[in-house]
Amino acid sequence: MSEATTRQRLIEVAIELFGEHSVAGTSLQMISEALGLTKSAIYHYFRTRDELLDAILDPVLAELAVLIAEAEAQRTARARADRMLIGYAALAAANRNLISVLSSDPHVTELVRRRAEWSSTVTRQMRLFAALEPGVGGQVNAAIVMSGFAGAARGEFEALDDDALRDQLVAAGRRTLGLRAPRAVSGR
Amino acid sequence: MSEATTRQRLIEVAIELFGEHSVAGTSLQMISEALGLTKSAIYHYFRTRDELLDAILDPVLAELAVLIAEAEAQRTARARADRMLIGYAALAAANRNLISVLSSDPHVTELVRRRAEWSSTVTRQMRLFAALEPGVGGQVNAAIVMSGFAGAARGEFEALDDDALRDQLVAAGRRTLGLRAPRAVSGR
Repeated sequence: MSEATTRQRLIEVAIELFGEHSVAGTSLQMISEALGLTKSAIYHYFRTRDELLDAILDPVLAELAVLIAEAEAQRTARARADRMLIGYAALAAANRNLISVLSSDPHVTELVRRRAEWSSTVTRQMRLFAALEPGVGGQVNAAIVMSGFAGAARGEFEALDDDALRDQLVAAGRRTLGLRAPRAVSGR
Repeated sequence: MSEATTRQRLIEVAIELFGEHSVAGTSLQMISEALGLTKSAIYHYFRTRDELLDAILDPVLAELAVLIAEAEAQRTARARADRMLIGYAALAAANRNLISVLSSDPHVTELVRRRAEWSSTVTRQMRLFAALEPGVGGQVNAAIVMSGFAGAARGEFEALDDDALRDQLVAAGRRTLGLRAPRAVSGR
């Protein structure tokens, strides 16, 4: 395998093992072994588990930030929430193991909390979902959508391709937030 | 402290640390230290982490099984789902850290999967929520409610007392499942 391929495979295997054993229950050695590498080979790519986690989290949080910016550019609170819902559902369906680790692993929660850029991304996403209902009700709705999509992505929906899972998540999320499906646009 | 009090405090501290560090990231030693006990004192109460987990999970899964039986005794699928929703929301609000560990910690998921009684409890709960929409849509709704309530319970809702959080969860969960609030009963 090329260096870039090995690095990518390390990341994929790590996400899988983090989902199976939690981050705290997964050592760099377990990840190397799952790939048939020697114990020390992984250190060529990542010196610590947090360095590996950084390589995993940074791209997905950057992608989320782009989706948030697109949503925030919509004209109404309903359009902003709906755009965010569709983007987050697609992200969750395409990154089923990773979204669940991102949403619920305590070690990841702590890393996100400590990095201002990442925690502001999560707060902005939450705010878009929460804006449709005043007060704490909106925040509870937002928390249900964010954790609920992550939990459903981890669920046993292998039979659904990414688009089908996304559509199911969007339909349920719209109900949770009290959003109606937008009217069909002519030509669709 | 009496033996019973110490045992109960061990359980409470363990649930808190499991939520903060995941089960895999929490040793029996960390739990004893958090209580100011010596390293070996905890072994008087629990010989392994799984024995301690058993003492934590068994009561909450037994309580869930009672709620499920009450829900299953209702006459219609809508009444069954609604009763389950109210029961699960109350359980989540009263056990905020524990429900989140139960719902998303990979070590706990594996313990539940391996014990037939526990995994049948979770399956029955899922079925009650899923029954309102045919096919995979119902299952996605159920997964969102189950993980979403757990995620919201872990959220920053300290300002809400248990009844207030329960009511917010029920309102959102009814929308997710497409349930209307039942008509007010006279005298309420």
